Amino acid sequence: MTNQSIVHDVYPSRVSPKARILPRVDPVVYRNERTNSGPLTTEQLSFYEQNGYLNLTGFFASEEVQELRSEMDRLWEKNAQANRKEVIREPESQEVRSIFAVHRDNEVFRQLSQDPRLVQMIEQILGSEVYLHQSRINYKKGFTGKEFYWHSDFETWHVEDGMPRMRALSCSITLEENFHYNGPLLLVPGSHQSFITCVGETPEDHYEQSLRRQEYGVPDQENLAKLVEKHGIDTMTGPAGSVVLFDCNIMHGSNSNISPLPRSNVFMVYNSVENKLVAPFSGQQPRPDYIATRE
Amino acid sequence: MTNQSIVHDVYPSRVSPKARILPRVDPVVYRNERTNSGPLTTEQLSFYEQNGYLNLTGFFASEEVQELRSEMDRLWEKNAQANRKEVIREPESQEVRSIFAVHRDNEVFRQLSQDPRLVQMIEQILGSEVYLHQSRINYKKGFTGKEFYWHSDFETWHVEDGMPRMRALSCSITLEENFHYNGPLLLVPGSHQSFITCVGETPEDHYEQSLRRQEYGVPDQENLAKLVEKHGIDTMTGPAGSVVLFDCNIMHGSNSNISPLPRSNVFMVYNSVENKLVAPFSGQQPRPDYIATRE
Repeated sequence: MTNQSIVHDVYPSRVSPKARILPRVDPVVYRNERTNSGPLTTEQLSFYEQNGYLNLTGFFASEEVQELRSEMDRLWEKNAQANRKEVIREPESQEVRSIFAVHRDNEVFRQLSQDPRLVQMIEQILGSEVYLHQSRINYKKGFTGKEFYWHSDFETWHVEDGMPRMRALSCSITLEENFHYNGPLLLVPGSHQSFITCVGETPEDHYEQSLRRQEYGVPDQENLAKLVEKHGIDTMTGPAGSVVLFDCNIMHGSNSNISPLPRSNVFMVYNSVENKLVAPFSGQQPRPDYIATRE
Repeated sequence: MTNQSIVHDVYPSRVSPKARILPRVDPVVYRNERTNSGPLTTEQLSFYEQNGYLNLTGFFASEEVQELRSEMDRLWEKNAQANRKEVIREPESQEVRSIFAVHRDNEVFRQLSQDPRLVQMIEQILGSEVYLHQSRINYKKGFTGKEFYWHSDFETWHVEDGMPRMRALSCSITLEENFHYNGPLLLVPGSHQSFITCVGETPEDHYEQSLRRQEYGVPDQENLAKLVEKHGIDTMTGPAGSVVLFDCNIMHGSNSNISPLPRSNVFMVYNSVENKLVAPFSGQQPRPDYIATRE
């Protein structure tokens, strides 16, 4: 039984040989009784609604950042030689690129994921209680960190994980200062209102490769160029401890990092409890739990 | 007969298993009767001397840029399938990365290389007449352009081409607007005063690989980190038609370009006629003429 028989797919992707831009049919800020009782101001909510992100520079105090960074370094050491599926390596070396499910496996990051200062903002935007869909540390070391090509997270979560609608967001916490030149997060503001369908079917167990280097679920150059021409590119620079909240469907990526300065961050995805996963819209097996929490 | 018997090598590199930082023993601005009679101001010369570069934004008029860009596009088309050694392709695709010797093979770029507005500035800095050591177009297309890792050009020109001393500079002319996010040129200001020796011997015919991806003549991470900690990183942003003059020994590189916006430039190297090439300091055969003019 596929989703198609029970849930109408309003965001079909990887089903047609030609890419299209579909309009978003879901709200960005889910306005209800939570909207006016959270920590974000009306201006911040409007900015998020219009641009698809909020860059909260210097959100965490430097002592908090220091604690997170120490724990991140500890995990790097511990996992340097580890043969765990949660540890993803760089495409051209054995260096650790990401460690998944840190909110599940590590006490410091579990507490971080439940920090009320974060959760209250996120619940205010998504208009409901939320749960952790995914978490990871991205190391992006100096000298050798490679680019993350443009993508909408939602496209993958929808097709490969069965996330029905756009009611999720990512929370990226920078653990180093982000400069223009050390591969910072690039966002196309406003692109969260357009869903670019991707071309081609998803291979089985695609995630084993895609976490190192994405090849399916990649938007086409023509539509990407249109989006950037229309909206431009915003760069998320700021001191360590900044928090960027960004919509699940905003087009984003980052360039490589040849600078000596690392650009590590903690990346946590929150999904609304009203938007729990169904079977993947690809019709294939869902990705494992360390990538997408199914509970 | 090697150079070592006739020219004392003041910048030995790729000869020791350990990298070192040697002080520059050559001037940056060669001060003589030309110094006060050229187009550059005293302030510009001082800036160049101290930082190792000058970013002359909007140097060429937009009609001039348009003509150069048309010619560059024509060369791209003409060389897309060409099997010429002057055409270098991207490391991970057959896309054209650079075309060498455009000042020799193309009338528009020959004229550009002799433009008195450029040559007068360069002769003012180098304190003598100059000639073209190398020229190329770097395409760095949108979406797929890869990084150029950190390097001092002089290290390669010295070891592989036999350029005796630091009395040369590069002139990069941007043919597209350079933003922070489309892989602009990154320079370490002040690094031109330090010569980082590289480790390892040079393989025969190394240039055939190194123009696609550099592996030898690469500075070590420890000394690079020291330089950046001391000097920082300056980013060469600006409109199309900007000219960046930079010293032959300044540490530079660029990140990848996932943005849709190309970052093509013309790159011309001028050497003093007082600094003509000798036999390569590697003791090996010199690189071919389309990479290093020997006359």
